[in-house]
Amino acid sequence: MRLSPMSSSLMRIPAARRGLITRSPIRSLILSRDFSFKKNADAKERVVILGSGWAGYSLARTLDPAQYERIVISPRPYFVFTPLLASTSVGTLEFRNILEPIRRIPGKIGFYQGWADDIDFNRKTIKVETNAAEEAASKTVVPPPGGQITVRAKGDLIDIRYDKLVIACGAYSQTFGIEGVREHAHFLRDIGDARRIRLRVLSLFEQCSYPNGSDHLTVDDKRKLLHFAVVGGGPTGIEWAAELNDLIYDDLGKMYPHLLPFVKISVYDVAPKVLPMFDQALATYAMEHFARQGIEVKTEHHLERIRLADGRLGQKHGGLGLKIKEYGDKEVGAGMVVWSTGLMANPLISKIASKSHTIFPYTNGSANPKTGEPSTTRHLVVDQRTGGLMTDGQLRAQTVTAENKKGVMDDVFVIGDCAVIEDDPLPKTAQVAAQQATFLAKQLNRKAFEEAGKKEEAAATFKFRNWGTLTYLGGWKAIHQSKADELKGWVAWIVWRGAYLTKAMSWRNKALVPIYWMISWIFGRGISRF
Amino acid sequence: MRLSPMSSSLMRIPAARRGLITRSPIRSLILSRDFSFKKNADAKERVVILGSGWAGYSLARTLDPAQYERIVISPRPYFVFTPLLASTSVGTLEFRNILEPIRRIPGKIGFYQGWADDIDFNRKTIKVETNAAEEAASKTVVPPPGGQITVRAKGDLIDIRYDKLVIACGAYSQTFGIEGVREHAHFLRDIGDARRIRLRVLSLFEQCSYPNGSDHLTVDDKRKLLHFAVVGGGPTGIEWAAELNDLIYDDLGKMYPHLLPFVKISVYDVAPKVLPMFDQALATYAMEHFARQGIEVKTEHHLERIRLADGRLGQKHGGLGLKIKEYGDKEVGAGMVVWSTGLMANPLISKIASKSHTIFPYTNGSANPKTGEPSTTRHLVVDQRTGGLMTDGQLRAQTVTAENKKGVMDDVFVIGDCAVIEDDPLPKTAQVAAQQATFLAKQLNRKAFEEAGKKEEAAATFKFRNWGTLTYLGGWKAIHQSKADELKGWVAWIVWRGAYLTKAMSWRNKALVPIYWMISWIFGRGISRF
Repeated sequence: MRLSPMSSSLMRIPAARRGLITRSPIRSLILSRDFSFKKNADAKERVVILGSGWAGYSLARTLDPAQYERIVISPRPYFVFTPLLASTSVGTLEFRNILEPIRRIPGKIGFYQGWADDIDFNRKTIKVETNAAEEAASKTVVPPPGGQITVRAKGDLIDIRYDKLVIACGAYSQTFGIEGVREHAHFLRDIGDARRIRLRVLSLFEQCSYPNGSDHLTVDDKRKLLHFAVVGGGPTGIEWAAELNDLIYDDLGKMYPHLLPFVKISVYDVAPKVLPMFDQALATYAMEHFARQGIEVKTEHHLERIRLADGRLGQKHGGLGLKIKEYGDKEVGAGMVVWSTGLMANPLISKIASKSHTIFPYTNGSANPKTGEPSTTRHLVVDQRTGGLMTDGQLRAQTVTAENKKGVMDDVFVIGDCAVIEDDPLPKTAQVAAQQATFLAKQLNRKAFEEAGKKEEAAATFKFRNWGTLTYLGGWKAIHQSKADELKGWVAWIVWRGAYLTKAMSWRNKALVPIYWMISWIFGRGISRF
Repeated sequence: MRLSPMSSSLMRIPAARRGLITRSPIRSLILSRDFSFKKNADAKERVVILGSGWAGYSLARTLDPAQYERIVISPRPYFVFTPLLASTSVGTLEFRNILEPIRRIPGKIGFYQGWADDIDFNRKTIKVETNAAEEAASKTVVPPPGGQITVRAKGDLIDIRYDKLVIACGAYSQTFGIEGVREHAHFLRDIGDARRIRLRVLSLFEQCSYPNGSDHLTVDDKRKLLHFAVVGGGPTGIEWAAELNDLIYDDLGKMYPHLLPFVKISVYDVAPKVLPMFDQALATYAMEHFARQGIEVKTEHHLERIRLADGRLGQKHGGLGLKIKEYGDKEVGAGMVVWSTGLMANPLISKIASKSHTIFPYTNGSANPKTGEPSTTRHLVVDQRTGGLMTDGQLRAQTVTAENKKGVMDDVFVIGDCAVIEDDPLPKTAQVAAQQATFLAKQLNRKAFEEAGKKEEAAATFKFRNWGTLTYLGGWKAIHQSKADELKGWVAWIVWRGAYLTKAMSWRNKALVPIYWMISWIFGRGISRF
């Protein structure tokens, strides 16, 4: 049997796809949906959300698709459930257990994958640098020890129009300009970070398990490579150290028992106390628990530089040398450094904040359109301490004119880590971001209903409700603190595991996370390296 | 609290690891095990197994650790359950569901990660190029469209001694020297291949979903990028096409319905018939099922070249142009090509087969030690058709002297894809490899017992039992053929799913695979790209 040549059959694909006809449920689904995002085709207001973290994802899920056309723009096509990121980095959970694809948000949702590069508040347009073509390459590249791979080619630029804009693009990790941090430290903010950490931890053990010999690693080299350094004593750093300790003693110890004597985990912090958000009793409990597990916590220690170790230890094995102020010139050896300190402003925020914007009254900005003024030239207001964008209590972006006249943009909202509410600075946490998103979505959902009835009412103001803080300490223990109560030990652990299950996750992952907890508990963590 | 400086505390790690003392179950485990692999420490014979595929892994699992010291050498630290590889490449299963870490094989097992670079049959030593340090980098790199990344630095060389050697290092994909296949086609043999395929399929849909415009992809470009070409109409190629079709119509169609009319899947084969191992009725059933699903099967088509498409389609989007003999100079556009044709000899096999080896009688080779002959110089015998190593019926490596005197090496066995039994050529399948491994393990287990009693007996000869062949066709259908029966449709599908569960897998994965089948059936496949 010889079929017709491809060149002509290519022209007949749509008709020839018999699958479309025989698989009627899919076909009816296709026919019932409208896929153009053009204004004309859809009279709904278009809300464009920049970012797919806690703020952007929660908003996209909560905003009513019957009232708004929802478009998410983000360089990554998923939301990461960050409280369980450390668990995936040690193999307790599988990476996809904590990912929620944006395109699986129920209801019609638009998505453009890319980096928001600039915003034209006058033309109400966002310039997006697409990154789907480069993604497969850039996401998976792990620089070899001592090397760097530059893969991200410049993507195409596309313009996306908005009616309402929600800026929820988060913040970047703060490195304080310390030498070598960007090149050699591991961050723990995205799923790719967790994957790189997992590979690095597991491959360090494998590297150290070759037979000893003059050509190979010395005992002292192994001590250096199996030293895991965490910089930053906040909940992220502490939890990662705890999870790593569990992985090593529950699982890796069975496979590499001869390496256990070389293993060491250290947490460095510049402050005199770690876990600053916990009261003294809980922080002390945590430190005593760490001490029992052999994790060293070094407060008032200042990291000044990370560089590759000399010779083959660095070039071949990726061993690092840490210069710590308190130790003078003597470097501390380490196999990896996990960096979990503060946050700094996103480059997009810096870019739009550095420019003046011409805003016309028809945007319904707070400059009174009745004055007849054709336009105003304004700057966004930036919080000097954090570099975030200032908002009012309704989370609208604040502006200021050259004459120092304050105002807001009615159709531009800022939420999450890149937002700072005037007179109400809040911590940059998932809780704050998610609550802001839910507040804003509800406001917008209500507003659209009301606009139909032309009813006017006083705007609600965002109020943060602190649900308390939880930190896992390893060995099935955690501490929890809120205004109402204070828990520790087993009780905290149960609260911790239970609480996360009910939040933000799809049913798919709500089912898979406890299954993996059970599987890891029975059979051990996932330790296959690939 | 300021702790003592790191430099001095580093010296005190072993005593300071209080975790070792408090966690008694782990500690007792450590203390009860012996981790040195030195001959002196362990009187057991050392069996070194090269490879961790069906042959090597099955042997390592079956060989009795009470009788032998088991050492596996492989460049990858896991076994891949290949029948489900296509399922992971489309997100029905998670990658780790089909990986079995070598270090989790029950009982004491030694493992050195690296490539066997050479074998000295005289000194009974294997030269291994270690690759754990490079692994994290090389395993995860996806070359950007049009680019190539060379990351594998030369690893350290270590020598591993053996008493008995089992060569089970498999074969490589055969590309027949066709231009562009190595650079641009996707293979489907290891878990990294499946991951790259998954990323590529999903990112092609994302790339084609940006708004149309003069700068961006034309409709014709999208038709090219969403053309998925499979070269090779054997079970692997057919199953992948079927699984891809399921993914597209069950899952991606819901997220990118506007792209469905551009999608096309083609299978090319040089032979006049695909699935040659099935009889005509079953093959016809399969082709009719494919035709109903819109998958085009092009038999008697010869691929002559793959190259990047011209201009930005190739450079930016990784679009390909396929030159097919039957179509003359007109290239066929494709977004990706999955290559699943034949196998060729592994470089290690070629290397050891090209040299002569000096074998001393004390190796207990078949050259009679009683003759007093100090040594013989021999070559390994190579099968001219496949490049594999010839063995006798007991799977021992055959040798030949310059005087054309045939013999075998008593302590060197060859199994799996790199072995060819004299007078009994078998297909290079998982079934054959696994059965050879089990046969050999049982022979060795029995032998060790008997040697203690000095009993002599006639050696058993390997006999292959054909369990039949199964191929999944998509849409929950499969075909199955064996001597005894012939099944198709739903029945075959149930046999197929059921049969795989009981084979070769750990309990962890035996539990997870059906869970994922159910989760994917209820909630859809895993489509998060990262």
